[in-house]
Amino acid sequence: MNQIRDLQELINTSISEINLNFKPTELYEPIIYSLSNGGKRLRPLLALVGCDLFNGKIEDALQLAIGMEIFHNFTLVHDDIMDNAPLRRGKETVYKKWDQNIAILSGDTMFALAYHHICSTKPDVLPMILEVFNQTAREVCEGQQYDMNFEGQKLISLKDYIEMIRLKTGVLLGCCLKAGALCGGASAESAQYLYEFGVNLGISFQIKDDYLDIFGNEEAFGKLNCGDIIARKKTFLYLKALEIAGIETRNEIIRVYNDLSISDNERVKLIKYYFIELGIKEVAELEMERFYSLGLEFLKKIEIPEEQFRLLLSISTSMMERSH
Amino acid sequence: MNQIRDLQELINTSISEINLNFKPTELYEPIIYSLSNGGKRLRPLLALVGCDLFNGKIEDALQLAIGMEIFHNFTLVHDDIMDNAPLRRGKETVYKKWDQNIAILSGDTMFALAYHHICSTKPDVLPMILEVFNQTAREVCEGQQYDMNFEGQKLISLKDYIEMIRLKTGVLLGCCLKAGALCGGASAESAQYLYEFGVNLGISFQIKDDYLDIFGNEEAFGKLNCGDIIARKKTFLYLKALEIAGIETRNEIIRVYNDLSISDNERVKLIKYYFIELGIKEVAELEMERFYSLGLEFLKKIEIPEEQFRLLLSISTSMMERSH
Repeated sequence: MNQIRDLQELINTSISEINLNFKPTELYEPIIYSLSNGGKRLRPLLALVGCDLFNGKIEDALQLAIGMEIFHNFTLVHDDIMDNAPLRRGKETVYKKWDQNIAILSGDTMFALAYHHICSTKPDVLPMILEVFNQTAREVCEGQQYDMNFEGQKLISLKDYIEMIRLKTGVLLGCCLKAGALCGGASAESAQYLYEFGVNLGISFQIKDDYLDIFGNEEAFGKLNCGDIIARKKTFLYLKALEIAGIETRNEIIRVYNDLSISDNERVKLIKYYFIELGIKEVAELEMERFYSLGLEFLKKIEIPEEQFRLLLSISTSMMERSH
Repeated sequence: MNQIRDLQELINTSISEINLNFKPTELYEPIIYSLSNGGKRLRPLLALVGCDLFNGKIEDALQLAIGMEIFHNFTLVHDDIMDNAPLRRGKETVYKKWDQNIAILSGDTMFALAYHHICSTKPDVLPMILEVFNQTAREVCEGQQYDMNFEGQKLISLKDYIEMIRLKTGVLLGCCLKAGALCGGASAESAQYLYEFGVNLGISFQIKDDYLDIFGNEEAFGKLNCGDIIARKKTFLYLKALEIAGIETRNEIIRVYNDLSISDNERVKLIKYYFIELGIKEVAELEMERFYSLGLEFLKKIEIPEEQFRLLLSISTSMMERSH
């Protein structure tokens, strides 16, 4: 049986073996830098497992999986410009380390490179895989645009927020599973069920991200807790609090969140207090559970051998049980 | 026989019929704006003609052709950010009209959209078409990076300059012809000859661009002459002048080009004087002719029906004979 760690090692080795020794170096060095920034390699992992679920050969899905990881890293390089983010996984972002133009152009090159790897998939399944990937690439952009729009909006419904994280995070996880499955010989129907599982897993995963920022283990999380409150981000927790609070508390939360005269430290304490008071921790846990279960319902519709099913579950539960 | 104007009309109609009525509008409005900015639609035209040369059905190559035009416009949207260009074809650039983040993300979406259109090509030729397109997309990025590098470099050889315009302009023209040809049923060999023709046509076309900026018909060109001298761009003409001038004239040209105390008006006159003195006009004309002939040599290796050959030639000569 394939173990997660073996698959991750395979992915990391393959990524390190990509030949990026091209000119101009100004273009390719940031790509090497971006791809070597580690991470859990979740997306390629899901692509490989998707293939394995249908008894496909892991090797057949490897380039596809690598392409998905390159695409994911491309979106991070561009998002970091748009979000003015100086750091990613503790290292300087590409646009900070080099400059913005280089980050734009290296990102574009990574996008093309992602397609190059994906296109080396077997020709008989390639059109179906490209169909879902082309759509996904667009939707990820839509998700980022909604995320940027939200910054300037006062009222965001939870429904709109869920749609944003579905697009920004969910669809790519779904796409990785589906593409891997198609590569492994899955029927269009089974591949689609797997896609739906991935999308819901992604939504659950993103709510968990918001949750851990407030209630996570600070040391293990590797960054200061409550960064989202400091950055005044409209997270799931914040929007949920506004939804369920009474009118007075609601107004008070909005005031505290946006009042520039309140110190970060004080704002964090006040907002966390309201979250706890309103039971947001438990509500968030229920929501994560709900989306995850929704995803599992789709999985049940597919016939998967016991062993491979356990591998997929061990990945998804490790995603959901992380404390950081 | 297909006429250029009919093909252009078909392209423009197809572009106007692309459904871009999606949300968020912040993402799609700039795409509609960018694609409606007109232009000669040269790249899709070459793709359609490439298909026609081998008696392929024009309709089969239409989506592919549209994808090439969307890709080209995507590169313009991102290039305009990097080059701080406020205007394109007399209209505000996307990043000026909206903002930089929107230009980055709309551009990314256009890249994905380009693939969507290209991928609707017949599955039997799709892998070959994607192979050349993936490579081309990367090379166009490399060309733009070289172009940016040149800005900060003092010494650029003409060889490096030609390589830059080959990547930035040539390979996409070659790719359009090759992809169209493959779609039309060309052999890999014939398609490759057509590619080489396109690349050389592109280089010739780009030298012509530099040439027209200095020696073109100002009114017809629609922009002020000698903008390249004002912007101190290291064009073919400038680099050629440095190459053939004696050491004294050479140093004088460099001094005048970079001396901030000399007015734009005076600099234009002085540099134009040196260009005329050194016979740069004639040298540039010979170079354009040389690359074009080089391209034609590749065309001669392919068996093409007389009528279709004339159509291709009418496009390429109209590109080379333009006075603006």
